[in-house]
Amino acid sequence: MNIGIIGIGCIGSSLARDLKKYQGYEIYVHDTNPDFLEKARELSLAHHYGDIQKLASNCDLIFICVPVLAILKVIEQILPHMKEGSIVTDVGSVKSTLYVNPKTMPEGVVYIPGHPITSGTNDSGPLAGREDVFKERKWIITPNKTASELQVNKLRELLESLGANVLSLTANVHDEMLGFVSHLPHVMAFSAMQAAHDLNEKLDEDVFTFAGGSFMDLTRIAGGDPDMWRDIFITNKEGILAACALFTSRMDELKKMIENENIEEIYQFVNTAHKIKTENYPHQSTEGEI
Amino acid sequence: MNIGIIGIGCIGSSLARDLKKYQGYEIYVHDTNPDFLEKARELSLAHHYGDIQKLASNCDLIFICVPVLAILKVIEQILPHMKEGSIVTDVGSVKSTLYVNPKTMPEGVVYIPGHPITSGTNDSGPLAGREDVFKERKWIITPNKTASELQVNKLRELLESLGANVLSLTANVHDEMLGFVSHLPHVMAFSAMQAAHDLNEKLDEDVFTFAGGSFMDLTRIAGGDPDMWRDIFITNKEGILAACALFTSRMDELKKMIENENIEEIYQFVNTAHKIKTENYPHQSTEGEI
Repeated sequence: MNIGIIGIGCIGSSLARDLKKYQGYEIYVHDTNPDFLEKARELSLAHHYGDIQKLASNCDLIFICVPVLAILKVIEQILPHMKEGSIVTDVGSVKSTLYVNPKTMPEGVVYIPGHPITSGTNDSGPLAGREDVFKERKWIITPNKTASELQVNKLRELLESLGANVLSLTANVHDEMLGFVSHLPHVMAFSAMQAAHDLNEKLDEDVFTFAGGSFMDLTRIAGGDPDMWRDIFITNKEGILAACALFTSRMDELKKMIENENIEEIYQFVNTAHKIKTENYPHQSTEGEI
Repeated sequence: MNIGIIGIGCIGSSLARDLKKYQGYEIYVHDTNPDFLEKARELSLAHHYGDIQKLASNCDLIFICVPVLAILKVIEQILPHMKEGSIVTDVGSVKSTLYVNPKTMPEGVVYIPGHPITSGTNDSGPLAGREDVFKERKWIITPNKTASELQVNKLRELLESLGANVLSLTANVHDEMLGFVSHLPHVMAFSAMQAAHDLNEKLDEDVFTFAGGSFMDLTRIAGGDPDMWRDIFITNKEGILAACALFTSRMDELKKMIENENIEEIYQFVNTAHKIKTENYPHQSTEGEI
């Protein structure tokens, strides 16, 4: 089987690393950044480098590993060259948006959106990837009606061979869920970082020097790539606003209790949150609590 | 010098551990929990155990290491027995509130509020303490006009001998700053945990199984002790509401940009937050970003 990877950053190059370990796969990679291609060649990540048309016409399965807003452009670029029976998938963080869904697909070519739930790094390009990053991690796919069971299973088996736990969801549920567990914490972290700066100006003190574990953990992800997060915020508008609404409704409730000094209600609120936390993550320590 | 410690939980017992290492200190400890006292005795944390009146009348320096709402009661209990020239301090997370400030002090006895910026653990009682937890950490004191320079220096020197960086602030600045870097993240974590539970019910999916590093880090502290956090939320009402206002103002700004799909403004917001973050914590990785 010939496998194509378009975009060899963190996810794309991790995929290449894992797929190279298996015999029988012929790997084609492409990237618009010539330095990344050169680096991929040095690292021997694939068998063929750089020609996107050749990649499209030769591959049975193509992974698009570019930022969300670039996915559709890539799909439209490769579609005319793809052969019958081939599958396109992606690794974007948003699934239901029109930004990633092509209007028409050629006969016999199918697009099965996907999203591996894995960790990023601070590096970029092929050096950001690692081996075995998908092992025992969720890989969500959101197939629509145009994908046959056979085609979905073909993709599923390949992902499972990398150690991923493949899970099929509707695109809407995916976006609402990820909007909450991943995109909302980023909205909060970016906002908290700006607010910390505001407080610095107001008090003329360096509040950052007082930040303990809780503030550090909250804002750890504020170092995320601005291009990537702009794309996610634009494309998952509905999911993110729904998540913000759920969160602010609860935060407003607690704020109101504090304002009214409702000591018993505050205790109940905190104690319930404490229980939800300790029941779901009993092994995760709260050490470094300040 | 005789040193008293009232409350031998995480902070109190850590203090006892460190002070025992120095020669010449006679350590008195008290706790309302007889099991904690027994455990302290087994661990040999002090020289005298349990009699609060004897502690008050013998000690030159007394540390009150109880939850915020219990501080004033303890102060009022020991004041009649304290000897002239002695100093009381505490380790509470809130400083400007009337809840911790006694109306009158006997002649020659001074109260210098304090707050070590250190980490909690999941344990309670004397087993929760460790050695050297104050080393290279900030210890904020908020002395008022009744404390002489000599008295403040006496406390400062002792704290510095434990390795702490002692810093004097006004009580109001302390509370506004800690309200932001510590109390606000807890408001957010408790609220996010409740909201996650709401989403579970709504989607009938276990969103917790999709939670990656960003959500885990945000809610790590939701396992904090409900009694302790109820006290902090009640006593630092002003500081916490001010911090909430700063944060929600920035979060509302970003939400509005997402709602209006202002792609360029979103980029600027995220990029500014990214810069504030990377300039202040250049060595803290964003690995595990999802």
